[in-house]
Amino acid sequence: MNIVLIGSGNVATHLGNAFAALGYNITQIFSRTLANANRLAEVLSTQATNNLDQLDKTADLYLLAVSDQALAQLVQSLPKDLPGIILHCSGGTSMEILADFDQYGVIYPVQSFSKDVAVDLSATPFGIEANNKQVYTILTSIISKITTTVFPCASSQRLAIHTAAVFANNFSNAMFQVAEELLTEHQLPFDLLRPIIKESADKVQSRSPKLVQTGPAIRNDKITMDSHLKFISSHPDWQTIYQKISELIAKTSGNNS
Amino acid sequence: MNIVLIGSGNVATHLGNAFAALGYNITQIFSRTLANANRLAEVLSTQATNNLDQLDKTADLYLLAVSDQALAQLVQSLPKDLPGIILHCSGGTSMEILADFDQYGVIYPVQSFSKDVAVDLSATPFGIEANNKQVYTILTSIISKITTTVFPCASSQRLAIHTAAVFANNFSNAMFQVAEELLTEHQLPFDLLRPIIKESADKVQSRSPKLVQTGPAIRNDKITMDSHLKFISSHPDWQTIYQKISELIAKTSGNNS
Repeated sequence: MNIVLIGSGNVATHLGNAFAALGYNITQIFSRTLANANRLAEVLSTQATNNLDQLDKTADLYLLAVSDQALAQLVQSLPKDLPGIILHCSGGTSMEILADFDQYGVIYPVQSFSKDVAVDLSATPFGIEANNKQVYTILTSIISKITTTVFPCASSQRLAIHTAAVFANNFSNAMFQVAEELLTEHQLPFDLLRPIIKESADKVQSRSPKLVQTGPAIRNDKITMDSHLKFISSHPDWQTIYQKISELIAKTSGNNS
Repeated sequence: MNIVLIGSGNVATHLGNAFAALGYNITQIFSRTLANANRLAEVLSTQATNNLDQLDKTADLYLLAVSDQALAQLVQSLPKDLPGIILHCSGGTSMEILADFDQYGVIYPVQSFSKDVAVDLSATPFGIEANNKQVYTILTSIISKITTTVFPCASSQRLAIHTAAVFANNFSNAMFQVAEELLTEHQLPFDLLRPIIKESADKVQSRSPKLVQTGPAIRNDKITMDSHLKFISSHPDWQTIYQKISELIAKTSGNNS
């Protein structure tokens, strides 16, 4: 199985490494920025290019691993006579963006990829969509070697998962960041909160988040909430977020008196 | 060391168990609701009461582990001639609420306690405050047997930590809950997001949250954000939170163009 990677960022790097570890042959890396293509090509011991005219036209799989913003334009500029299967891995983009090709699909890892942070792909769910049954079978077969959780995932479902993941991952991380900045302002180390952050994530591994909510909002403890709001009065944006999320917690708990 | 526990909720239960495990003698549990006092007294093999007149007046330590809302009224109704050290463990309450007593202090576990969820107290930081050096030494000595992280914590610092913990724990959990509800609306299991939630918490155990942020807001990807906002258009409260947190992420990344 020969694979061309189009993209050289976090997702391309993590998936490229996973494919290489399975013994697949990464024949080429394309990136608009040649230095980036070269860097990943060196890691994966393969060729780099920043010229779509030089794209390897003999591969079995073309994985488009670029940002959601760059994807549409990339697809338009790709040669339409590519053989093999054309894949993207974007949570928020319909599979039909690839409809000009013969064989196409989506592999969507429900995971957040950061630079230089190892990720356990074997525990990462991958949603699979394909334009026909044969492609679906091939993709499922490949991805099942990477992870234990492979599931069929239509574009509309993928959008639901992607939106939910923004809340569960990006927005929770933003809450960690506010907490860190608040502690830093008061000369306190973020280490103080790392155990409770770990505990928060651990709790919901086997429970529903709504069953383990604690704190002043779920208790409708207005005195404590007012004291916190006053404490962060120099950050009106934090105050707004504090109020809106507290209202949400109170409402979903049926405690919104 | 004889200890009276005043309160019978999650914090009283977790700390009571920890003290009992250290071999301290829990002589009495007080709760306004006798059934609750009885339940915890049975677990800790001790006496229960719901009558403050019957409070054991021979203990070395009185731990007030009630909700922040109930604390002020409880303190007012306690007999002022109690011997030993009077402690509360509230993040948002000044130590000076106990100033009518001779010896008093605060032990503040930076942790979230839920019913029937075991917590690793040995990894939980405890902030200590006391009205004199002798009480501080005693409290530090006791709590050091429970956890590896004991630190001096003035009331103003405790308020900072408590406010930060609401963001890091309660609000991130609220984000998990939105994600779960969104998936449920689309007949998708929350299991799909459990690995990314674990990953989010793991990442910040050794890194700053702002260095590992991913997603459309940090990339200023307006097309994806608009698509998500449209997708959750039946939940205006989720939309508001989505917008406010995305603005915060974009702003703190210096990407707010």
